[in-house]
Amino acid sequence: MQAKGYENQYADGFQVLHPGKTMVGRAFTVQFMPLREDVNGVTQAKSKEATGKHLYNQTAIDMLQPGDVLVVDLFGKKVNGTIVGDNLFFYVNQATHGGGLVVDGSVRDLDGISEIDMPAYFKSVDPTPIGQVMLTGINVPVRIGGVTVMPGDMVVGDREGVYFVPPQFVQEVLDKADETHIHDEWTKKKFAEGKYKSGEIYGSPSDPKLKQEYEDYLKKRLDEIHKHRAGK
Amino acid sequence: MQAKGYENQYADGFQVLHPGKTMVGRAFTVQFMPLREDVNGVTQAKSKEATGKHLYNQTAIDMLQPGDVLVVDLFGKKVNGTIVGDNLFFYVNQATHGGGLVVDGSVRDLDGISEIDMPAYFKSVDPTPIGQVMLTGINVPVRIGGVTVMPGDMVVGDREGVYFVPPQFVQEVLDKADETHIHDEWTKKKFAEGKYKSGEIYGSPSDPKLKQEYEDYLKKRLDEIHKHRAGK
Amino acid sequence: MQAKGYENQYADGFQVLHPGKTMVGRAFTVQFMPLREDVNGVTQAKSKEATGKHLYNQTAIDMLQPGDVLVVDLFGKKVNGTIVGDNLFFYVNQATHGGGLVVDGSVRDLDGISEIDMPAYFKSVDPTPIGQVMLTGINVPVRIGGVTVMPGDMVVGDREGVYFVPPQFVQEVLDKADETHIHDEWTKKKFAEGKYKSGEIYGSPSDPKLKQEYEDYLKKRLDEIHKHRAGK
Amino acid sequence: MQAKGYENQYADGFQVLHPGKTMVGRAFTVQFMPLREDVNGVTQAKSKEATGKHLYNQTAIDMLQPGDVLVVDLFGKKVNGTIVGDNLFFYVNQATHGGGLVVDGSVRDLDGISEIDMPAYFKSVDPTPIGQVMLTGINVPVRIGGVTVMPGDMVVGDREGVYFVPPQFVQEVLDKADETHIHDEWTKKKFAEGKYKSGEIYGSPSDPKLKQEYEDYLKKRLDEIHKHRAGK
Amino acid sequence: MQAKGYENQYADGFQVLHPGKTMVGRAFTVQFMPLREDVNGVTQAKSKEATGKHLYNQTAIDMLQPGDVLVVDLFGKKVNGTIVGDNLFFYVNQATHGGGLVVDGSVRDLDGISEIDMPAYFKSVDPTPIGQVMLTGINVPVRIGGVTVMPGDMVVGDREGVYFVPPQFVQEVLDKADETHIHDEWTKKKFAEGKYKSGEIYGSPSDPKLKQEYEDYLKKRLDEIHKHRAGK
Amino acid sequence: MQAKGYENQYADGFQVLHPGKTMVGRAFTVQFMPLREDVNGVTQAKSKEATGKHLYNQTAIDMLQPGDVLVVDLFGKKVNGTIVGDNLFFYVNQATHGGGLVVDGSVRDLDGISEIDMPAYFKSVDPTPIGQVMLTGINVPVRIGGVTVMPGDMVVGDREGVYFVPPQFVQEVLDKADETHIHDEWTKKKFAEGKYKSGEIYGSPSDPKLKQEYEDYLKKRLDEIHKHRAGK
Repeated sequence: MQAKGYENQYADGFQVLHPGKTMVGRAFTVQFMPLREDVNGVTQAKSKEATGKHLYNQTAIDMLQPGDVLVVDLFGKKVNGTIVGDNLFFYVNQATHGGGLVVDGSVRDLDGISEIDMPAYFKSVDPTPIGQVMLTGINVPVRIGGVTVMPGDMVVGDREGVYFVPPQFVQEVLDKADETHIHDEWTKKKFAEGKYKSGEIYGSPSDPKLKQEYEDYLKKRLDEIHKHRAGK
Repeated sequence: MQAKGYENQYADGFQVLHPGKTMVGRAFTVQFMPLREDVNGVTQAKSKEATGKHLYNQTAIDMLQPGDVLVVDLFGKKVNGTIVGDNLFFYVNQATHGGGLVVDGSVRDLDGISEIDMPAYFKSVDPTPIGQVMLTGINVPVRIGGVTVMPGDMVVGDREGVYFVPPQFVQEVLDKADETHIHDEWTKKKFAEGKYKSGEIYGSPSDPKLKQEYEDYLKKRLDEIHKHRAGK
Repeated sequence: MQAKGYENQYADGFQVLHPGKTMVGRAFTVQFMPLREDVNGVTQAKSKEATGKHLYNQTAIDMLQPGDVLVVDLFGKKVNGTIVGDNLFFYVNQATHGGGLVVDGSVRDLDGISEIDMPAYFKSVDPTPIGQVMLTGINVPVRIGGVTVMPGDMVVGDREGVYFVPPQFVQEVLDKADETHIHDEWTKKKFAEGKYKSGEIYGSPSDPKLKQEYEDYLKKRLDEIHKHRAGK
Repeated sequence: MQAKGYENQYADGFQVLHPGKTMVGRAFTVQFMPLREDVNGVTQAKSKEATGKHLYNQTAIDMLQPGDVLVVDLFGKKVNGTIVGDNLFFYVNQATHGGGLVVDGSVRDLDGISEIDMPAYFKSVDPTPIGQVMLTGINVPVRIGGVTVMPGDMVVGDREGVYFVPPQFVQEVLDKADETHIHDEWTKKKFAEGKYKSGEIYGSPSDPKLKQEYEDYLKKRLDEIHKHRAGK
Repeated sequence: MQAKGYENQYADGFQVLHPGKTMVGRAFTVQFMPLREDVNGVTQAKSKEATGKHLYNQTAIDMLQPGDVLVVDLFGKKVNGTIVGDNLFFYVNQATHGGGLVVDGSVRDLDGISEIDMPAYFKSVDPTPIGQVMLTGINVPVRIGGVTVMPGDMVVGDREGVYFVPPQFVQEVLDKADETHIHDEWTKKKFAEGKYKSGEIYGSPSDPKLKQEYEDYLKKRLDEIHKHRAGK
Repeated sequence: MQAKGYENQYADGFQVLHPGKTMVGRAFTVQFMPLREDVNGVTQAKSKEATGKHLYNQTAIDMLQPGDVLVVDLFGKKVNGTIVGDNLFFYVNQATHGGGLVVDGSVRDLDGISEIDMPAYFKSVDPTPIGQVMLTGINVPVRIGGVTVMPGDMVVGDREGVYFVPPQFVQEVLDKADETHIHDEWTKKKFAEGKYKSGEIYGSPSDPKLKQEYEDYLKKRLDEIHKHRAGK
């Protein structure tokens, strides 16, 4: 994915709600912009005409499906940039079956939110309600840090930050993840034996025999993983 | 309390010693300013005359009572801005019966402090002792972030930050907290049933029947809470 | 304009190229987002179909008209976020007749740019060329700091920052500016006389006689200004 | 003055209005704190009783005398922390005969202010009026950065920052300034001759002959300065 | 150690991997600088000549011994400043017997690293590999924050930061640590009795009887500690 | 020079003393590290033995030659990180014939320095003298921001920042600068005619006739420049 044209798919600088809990899901994107009434008036009139309803943050939240990660561009706003408090966070968890939340903005009620077992990434925490913003898009391209996120991207979060994987790369990324996992497993196993210097094993063994040993291990473990998945 | 004239009662940006542990107490305020000997000389002379003693940080600490939260304005100083180390923190915990500490400044001995079960909010940690400052007031108005704190304010701290509630609002705030708690309880209960969109329930149900259901629930739970408190 | 719904029309935090030189013009907006090839491919294909050309920063620059201010959302990017160097800056100056530039991003060739007498507001300066971004909109709503800027907004910049005035408020703002200018003129004149305390004159005189004097002055000067404009 | 107990008399981190213009004057201090109505009510009632008037920023400004430097603690507030705009800045200039302004906060109307030839040091610039603060003291000790400023301190500002000199050190500081000035004059003169390495001249000549030459020069120039002053 | 000439032996501002776990070991230092091929070419040629090998980060890692703490100067680099990922971190843990890592730079694979029980101090986390740097020294003096670290220094890390103790001070520091530990023990014991104000006990008791009590306690406990160590 | 292995030759984030004045010279590098007496003792003893003198900042300054730019690594230190005040700055100007100064640290006496017509780049300004540091190298490789600077590098500074050009690239860079200069000249000339869109001219003309016109212009102007230089 680091290939030309996809170098900008990683964002960090978040507070991570549950470090150690991996987030994986499908991006459901929401865009906000600073409020100005002339623009908002037009947006709201269109929405009213089309759906009979005004557009606001719950309009988007009520569209969430199991497996979604709610990805919200609130342009880093802290005060009045709080996409959810603990009640709506609870709802998002229910609706997405624990999918997750990524917001370039803030959340409220951190005590309450901390008790809910859904992964979340946010820039800050504030006690104010959301305000002085207008919803300008649901499932449109949004910007999170230095990434253009598209609806449907696979979102993967760990202790460090969040990757947004375009759908056409998902299989490749999953395959790569299996190989990396096996490589790490084997590398640590060899290090644990205490017989090798790091340079003999990592990143790739120099000794042809060790290299072969690794290749065999990789093949065996990949087979096991595939069988295990098929068996499910 | 957000009514005109009380918009500035919340401070954040602290390191929170025991996240998840709520702090509630009465503000005992202490003010420091950068040292200059001519000013300090006058202050010390007055103190000596009135009490026979010099004024320094322990003078204030030795006045703490059970239920106090020690609130210290050290103007954000890190180096030599350490109001307590683990020994005095231990003492503050004893004297206030676990009341708490809020300092716009730093503390020392974080390892030792972490083992003591009292809530604390500080800007930074440093190994230096307190220095290059002078005590300029005990139980005077102090500034913590964007808040003017008065001695006797109710201090409430959670994972996010600290509220300073003027005494005349305490009852109102406690009542409001009960209602909010019941509202959150009910909202999450309804969301957990999985039958409603967030927009139907939150912030206030649109369906008159649901609205009535909530009103009844609120009344019943408030009664329970009041009886429970009376029964104590 | 500070009325409800238009509180977010001011942006600052820029480097100001020519402090003391006021910028006034009509917003011509350009939006960039972080590059990802799948999104860019679709955009470029559409542009190619519609106009026979690829879309890039010069596509937008070549559409500028006299009186335009080029307003560019490059999401604060410094490295590879340089909308123009001195050659294109020279061109923008020519094309807009000295209109101006506002970029939430950077510029190159500050030495060369400094010699060109057009107002400009940018976040930073960098020697790299623009890169790792894709043009996603021309004359669409863009975000500059905490402002949603619409194409056609009146852009007014001074030493402090930039106002984006929605067209429906332009007349009101200009009238208000005349009054403010006259008020400042009169206030300073009275202060220069050295007979008054600031509280007697500013913001509005308390003495009814002085108040009347100011009202007469305001009326007279407004008449002069209007005649002068009509005479042009 | 660097002697024990006076190490904290220098503040920097300001925007300097007229770099290259030295500021010298007598500190007139004003203290603001974040607004809370219960505290402000008491302050205002006391002021009303004592002076028949409410207390606000112009109350302080109207007390300024020639030679004063207005020193304002607005605790670094930017938005609504604007002590003056260009009208009041004009007034301060008139009232203090160009004394100066130091504010740990902001100013408005930078274009207008820039045209007025009074030194000023401020942390930021903002278009909002002053607000959400209360005046809590005039000519009381205030904190500016890491300095406790007392009314009557000599305030000296240059391109780098501001010194606050306690009155008891003023003569000593002025004498020291004369010596430093002469030392710099002589040192540069010797360097300009091009015959010496820096280590032979600076900070103090090692060669006894040069040392004597400097001592003679110092004496002669001090005499000239004193005569010149006496002659004025 | 705070004596003249050793005031700069403490560094903080790190992310601490396992707060509450103390780090103690011997500094093994590594220095990197920004890559430039002319310099790197010479370094590599020399290394090749001397050892038959190229120099890179694993060259240093493979020299680690039990009890070492790996101390790396990567001049605060985040992107491409990742000294290890979880595989090499695993190796370092094996090789040093849990010694530890201090890097003025970043690490990769925080999830994997978090599962390994070795203390680590780093400035940031990034998913990129190490790059655009060159190894310029192994066991040379390096700079970590405001400290010059020498190979062989005793490295002590806690929740706050890291001390680098020159070998000639190690015994003194250990003795001082014993005394401090006993002093804290006694002070807390007295505070726990609830009979004393903090000022009567801390830092040193004013009452001669209490002072004697403390001296006896100190002597007794030091004896116990020394016997306990001797007995091991 | 952006070719592989030389991507790290530019540093910015400096205060520029005389914007608009270009700096060109040969790097004379000096390295400081945080003081520790054991290390400094060895360094000083060696220096004493070799040269009979102690090593300090003037030792380096007294070695400067015409055409040198003094490049100092003071690891970003502000307080006590002041390499020169106005007296030594005056000397450096004399000794280098206006060569220049780049310091990853601070300077003193900005008022005095501003009157001396030598280019200078520094991170901050402070009134303290240099201290708590030790000189660890003269004309050794030093780090300035993200650049490894070698003694003898060509140092080029403008309004934006500073380039450090390895000697082997100097001719290439000078040639490239001539071409860029001519390209800018021609491009602006064409834009000034007002007949072309920016896309037709910049970066390279698409019309073959224009392209030829540019090639001819480039050739003619390069000849002129070379003759002019030869004629000098």
